[in-house]
Amino acid sequence: MPESKIQQAPHKILAIPGPIEVTNEVLDAISQPPMSHVSPGFVKIFRECMDMTRQVLYTTTGMPFIIAGSGTLGWDEVSSNLVEPGEAALVVNTGYFGDGFSDCLRAYGASVDHVRAPLGDVVPSIDIERALKKRKYKVIVVTHVDTSTGVLSDVKAVAKIARKVSPETLVIVDGVCSVASEEIRMDDWDIDVILTASQKGLGTPPGLSILVASTRAIKVFENRKVPVTSYYASWQKWLPIMRAYDSGSPAYFATPPVNMVYAYHASLKQLTVGLEERFRAHQRASERIKAVAKQLGYTQIPKRSSIAANGMTAIYVPDGFAPKEIIPRLTEHGIVVAGGLHKEVKDKYIRIGHMGTSVVDERRGDVETIEKALKASVRK
Amino acid sequence: MPESKIQQAPHKILAIPGPIEVTNEVLDAISQPPMSHVSPGFVKIFRECMDMTRQVLYTTTGMPFIIAGSGTLGWDEVSSNLVEPGEAALVVNTGYFGDGFSDCLRAYGASVDHVRAPLGDVVPSIDIERALKKRKYKVIVVTHVDTSTGVLSDVKAVAKIARKVSPETLVIVDGVCSVASEEIRMDDWDIDVILTASQKGLGTPPGLSILVASTRAIKVFENRKVPVTSYYASWQKWLPIMRAYDSGSPAYFATPPVNMVYAYHASLKQLTVGLEERFRAHQRASERIKAVAKQLGYTQIPKRSSIAANGMTAIYVPDGFAPKEIIPRLTEHGIVVAGGLHKEVKDKYIRIGHMGTSVVDERRGDVETIEKALKASVRK
Repeated sequence: MPESKIQQAPHKILAIPGPIEVTNEVLDAISQPPMSHVSPGFVKIFRECMDMTRQVLYTTTGMPFIIAGSGTLGWDEVSSNLVEPGEAALVVNTGYFGDGFSDCLRAYGASVDHVRAPLGDVVPSIDIERALKKRKYKVIVVTHVDTSTGVLSDVKAVAKIARKVSPETLVIVDGVCSVASEEIRMDDWDIDVILTASQKGLGTPPGLSILVASTRAIKVFENRKVPVTSYYASWQKWLPIMRAYDSGSPAYFATPPVNMVYAYHASLKQLTVGLEERFRAHQRASERIKAVAKQLGYTQIPKRSSIAANGMTAIYVPDGFAPKEIIPRLTEHGIVVAGGLHKEVKDKYIRIGHMGTSVVDERRGDVETIEKALKASVRK
Repeated sequence: MPESKIQQAPHKILAIPGPIEVTNEVLDAISQPPMSHVSPGFVKIFRECMDMTRQVLYTTTGMPFIIAGSGTLGWDEVSSNLVEPGEAALVVNTGYFGDGFSDCLRAYGASVDHVRAPLGDVVPSIDIERALKKRKYKVIVVTHVDTSTGVLSDVKAVAKIARKVSPETLVIVDGVCSVASEEIRMDDWDIDVILTASQKGLGTPPGLSILVASTRAIKVFENRKVPVTSYYASWQKWLPIMRAYDSGSPAYFATPPVNMVYAYHASLKQLTVGLEERFRAHQRASERIKAVAKQLGYTQIPKRSSIAANGMTAIYVPDGFAPKEIIPRLTEHGIVVAGGLHKEVKDKYIRIGHMGTSVVDERRGDVETIEKALKASVRK
């Protein structure tokens, strides 16, 4: 791709846990004139997006589904393609997004059980093991990073337990707030589905639902007994399309969002150079921001640093402050952050996103700006 | 909005029936840095999109749903929110997209009947009237312009028949290939749902599902007996969000595709100035292109000019030619067109899109380029 022509106008740093700041190259790509979704040029771009998506997740055999939609659409794909009405699903619930996924599973007829973590904690392995022994689950669902609390679950360990106790249960990871900011090794960890969206670690504006399914998941789908219970999210429709693009031919079910795909392609090209260094950059930035916050009297929602996400920080505001005064102060000092989302503590904390180019491109100075804004936020 | 900074690189004219050519202003808007989906700035833009969407459809009371997705997602919204499992739907079928909508209705449990038009024709009113008298239908569904054949149905007449014969049946218009290129007066014609997508007459890249529901449709939804059978397409989720944005407050269900919304906003601002002149521009361009095609030995799929769409042309190639030689010739002469889609005649015809800025902005000369390319396409 030629040098980016786009220069972003000065603006406050978008430091919410998605959408995030994107690079000039991504904005340059998204502003190309639309091309035909069945043209050889587009097929090439789409195919490369599929391949680079696999790279990001360290899978060689996973089948990516890249569809116009938000991250939520991935829940519908899982619920309507992999779980048949009446079948059981186990939700490893660390907050708001576990509840959401559960709602979605139920909408399509699943029988849902939860193993719940206390606020700010992960679900103990023993609870997961016990639940899996008690009932036969078609899927086990875990939110890698719960965006409402910043809690990071150990999906590798969850997958291991599931595979040991209930080898047929499909392991589903909601990676909306973790893909490309936290390491995920789909093949090594033996995960069946990772679903995510474009606007967080993947560094693209929102508008793409991205999901990768294992060969095992695809086989389970192909052996369904009853028809798929959705249409727009149906793999009966999408699988032939994705297979066609993957082998270099166009196919049509619904018009793909071509400009969003250009943008995703541009971001993936930047991402896939030095993935491991990218994860380390997220860790470093996270440690810095969390350390500064702690000095200033902010307290983490995650109970231990080992279960805190690297791409975001969810912190209770210091005593004597309220989010509704802190948030505008942070904005005044150049960063846009998010308020609380978890119903139990909604009005007591803030959420800061630090993903993608903001932490990888040090020349931007975004981490420094976040640190400075935090310091200014509690100044009397 | 300030003068557009983006200049599109020279490229072949995208003359397929969607996605279409977009203006520099639209590309300028889509390439702005993402902002928070709950910020006052975004709420304002989203709210204005809702209002301008109403303007385009001549409705004051319709409730717009603007969601990340393709046009197809509108089918899911109708099928899962307005039709309960086991209820009956009547599809006024003029081709490929009638079949698709029917598949979608069935996926969510509807009992579907069809009244079918012969290839290239519309369904006679008397057939629709008879069907409506024979069975109680929850919805009647009509494709305004079937993109596979370029047939334009008289949705005003269909709505009138339905309202007369079966006043409670909801009238659903698939306007994916007609909104903003064909006149639709939602309130005057008493239509309950118009669903469309961003990438055709609305002049925005693909990636937004746009649907407007009447007060009657919303009431029917609110009086459902069983829970909604989808999740991502569920109005139980989206209606509170759209109502919040409509009244100027943010709300969260799934992250809206902010850059796509910027682009849609920019396009709507251009569209809503002189809507009626815009419809006339589509008619003039359509007449010119169809006349040239006729002179050259191309034959319309629509059987009469009164039932031919104004935003696209579906034509059998002249005797002695095949689409697979015509299409590359047209590309050589600067325009990208689409092949056939209707299974009965797939390899005998081509489809040319002439919507949006290509027909409205005469300085572009796109209509002339299409005419010239057509002439060159049959030169021996």
